[in-house]
Amino acid sequence: MKTLVINCGSSSLKYQLIDMSTEESMVQGLVERIGIEGSLLTQKVEGREKYIIKTEIKDHKDAIRLVLGALIDEKYGVIKSMDEIAAVGHRVVHGGEKYSESVVLTEEVLKSVEECNALAPLHNPPNIIGIKACMELMPNVPMVGVFDTAFHQTMPKEAYICPLPYELYENYGIRKYGFHGTSHKYVSNKLAEVMGRDIKDLKIVTCHLGNGCSLAAVKGGKSIDTSMGFTPLAGVMMGTRSGSIDPSVIGFLINEKGYTMQEVDELLNKKSGVLGISGVSSDFRDVRDAAEQGNERAKLALDVFHYKVRAQIAAYAGVMGGIDAIVFTAGIGENSSLTRKESLKGLEFLGFELDNERNEIRGEIQEISTDNSRVKIYVIPTNEELMIARDTVELINNM
Amino acid sequence: MKTLVINCGSSSLKYQLIDMSTEESMVQGLVERIGIEGSLLTQKVEGREKYIIKTEIKDHKDAIRLVLGALIDEKYGVIKSMDEIAAVGHRVVHGGEKYSESVVLTEEVLKSVEECNALAPLHNPPNIIGIKACMELMPNVPMVGVFDTAFHQTMPKEAYICPLPYELYENYGIRKYGFHGTSHKYVSNKLAEVMGRDIKDLKIVTCHLGNGCSLAAVKGGKSIDTSMGFTPLAGVMMGTRSGSIDPSVIGFLINEKGYTMQEVDELLNKKSGVLGISGVSSDFRDVRDAAEQGNERAKLALDVFHYKVRAQIAAYAGVMGGIDAIVFTAGIGENSSLTRKESLKGLEFLGFELDNERNEIRGEIQEISTDNSRVKIYVIPTNEELMIARDTVELINNM
Repeated sequence: MKTLVINCGSSSLKYQLIDMSTEESMVQGLVERIGIEGSLLTQKVEGREKYIIKTEIKDHKDAIRLVLGALIDEKYGVIKSMDEIAAVGHRVVHGGEKYSESVVLTEEVLKSVEECNALAPLHNPPNIIGIKACMELMPNVPMVGVFDTAFHQTMPKEAYICPLPYELYENYGIRKYGFHGTSHKYVSNKLAEVMGRDIKDLKIVTCHLGNGCSLAAVKGGKSIDTSMGFTPLAGVMMGTRSGSIDPSVIGFLINEKGYTMQEVDELLNKKSGVLGISGVSSDFRDVRDAAEQGNERAKLALDVFHYKVRAQIAAYAGVMGGIDAIVFTAGIGENSSLTRKESLKGLEFLGFELDNERNEIRGEIQEISTDNSRVKIYVIPTNEELMIARDTVELINNM
Repeated sequence: MKTLVINCGSSSLKYQLIDMSTEESMVQGLVERIGIEGSLLTQKVEGREKYIIKTEIKDHKDAIRLVLGALIDEKYGVIKSMDEIAAVGHRVVHGGEKYSESVVLTEEVLKSVEECNALAPLHNPPNIIGIKACMELMPNVPMVGVFDTAFHQTMPKEAYICPLPYELYENYGIRKYGFHGTSHKYVSNKLAEVMGRDIKDLKIVTCHLGNGCSLAAVKGGKSIDTSMGFTPLAGVMMGTRSGSIDPSVIGFLINEKGYTMQEVDELLNKKSGVLGISGVSSDFRDVRDAAEQGNERAKLALDVFHYKVRAQIAAYAGVMGGIDAIVFTAGIGENSSLTRKESLKGLEFLGFELDNERNEIRGEIQEISTDNSRVKIYVIPTNEELMIARDTVELINNM
């Protein structure tokens, strides 16, 4: 059963075709600059040269059409006909309170998913556009929506209710939703498998540290708290996003310094975090290099980042009443031994011992605590696409 | 040496006269509605009836004049002449980065303190008005300014730098300052004294839970982190203040729901927190009573509050690499056994055992952990006025 996984942004589209008999990804592709001059498609198949198509791509339907063409291309493709695509799994950022699990997408369901757009006005509409385009082009292929928020719908009310007038929750849905749920779910389940333990018995802190960063407290296989909030801006600091800050800073900038709300939004989302403190880059590798060369602000940016992750890990150990394991995943979490080491520094009292040699791993499943460590630390590469494909197949098979 | 302690708000003024030979408070008073119709002074002396003066009080100078009159009043006063007042200690909310310690107030110093007004436009100006009025009326009495922010000036940079463009720190002084410093300093020192330990050897989480709430991580007698931030809005939720929230909520309310910045400011400062969630009151006793009578939102407000305190305690245990003691102080911290119990629930893995019987204490110095508890839990009533008077006497004596 070959499953196409689609992750549609406002002007980009990522895709993978996964053979679910082996769970192997057959092809990975990216369409960029949809509706913008210079649009292109790049497709990778292991062992082959990259396939790049530069052509006008005026909308998402154009993009999907191009993707399907690339998949069945005689020279660069991996399947003979579109009929081989048994199902499509779509990533959807926001499922509100309605979707605590993935869902088979029908015209009717899609309407209800669209109601979540108000909660994620930047993220959800492109997801929906992608789904609609696929439905038009593949009317007979079953499709599933997999929500970034779904895994966190198990949070207890004390974790998700904001300390705001309750009417804001009732009337506008303002609460903590959390994101990266597909990733937190994948790595926590994978961890239990690798540890040979029942996930029901485990208290895990999952650290998804990439362009966006979020941590989750996963107790008995369920997310009981996570650091992102109403939107993906909250929580620990990130590449360009501030994470949580004193909310008064916004009023101060607007009332005292003449900023507009729009300028503040852009500042918090695009110019803050590691980029803002370092002044160097939002890319951790650049910032680490600069820090190594003596750039004080670059060093400070790393220090603040690691400090915030450390405090968040400890907070989640607290709300779970201790921990059994900590997992690092995503771009930084999988690849930066420095970030793992510094984020854990001083937390040994939680019951682990880091193995510095093992920690020098990149992008592989690996325990990085010592054999004697009571609490286990792991690196587990995330695979949101596989998780989406798995949910898709499971739902389609039960249809 | 009798020291007058003044805490001046925009339309109110609290005062105490403390006999520093015994550290006993001789008199406590409050002037309310300064410059507003219905102004009055209320003065309490132990063992005597309350002294209430209802009269027009048109400004802070009027108020101070009335206070001095009440202190030397033949029937209700406690001293014979103003000459007995050896010094005045003033609470000042914000000392910026300039004041990491208390300071003897001269005309020149006062100018430099006024430069901090931009950082605390609501709080500092009335403090300064009070100081100026005292200087005019008691030109020969030495005065000292004691800052709410000073104790936290020992925070390392990774704790106080915000994940924002660094220029906001350089140009506008946007960083974490922290507040309630006088209280955190007092209770952490008192704790070491009561435990018979050198504070240099202790890692303490101090929980100041009152109308405003803040926690601090005090390591070796120094504040290394605290939950309030650039302003006293940040951190854990409070009676009417939200504490930290997803900053995107502000943009959502303004961009999508038509709120003005002023409405949002008021919402976050006056209508959120325990009041906002419960819809009942900002007063913990009312909310607890409502919860006991089955009010679900009142129960939720308490649950969220305790959850946030719990997570913050754990986070500070994390950044200090474990803890030796936790202290509860201020109105709720000193008086609510429920809050102490619930805030500690599940944190036993940090190394303490709560003694539920001992915990049924109100407003007294008391260990509430068991004798066998490795980590100690204490209730220690705060005394910011005494701390201000101590700093005042110490500085005056060294002049």
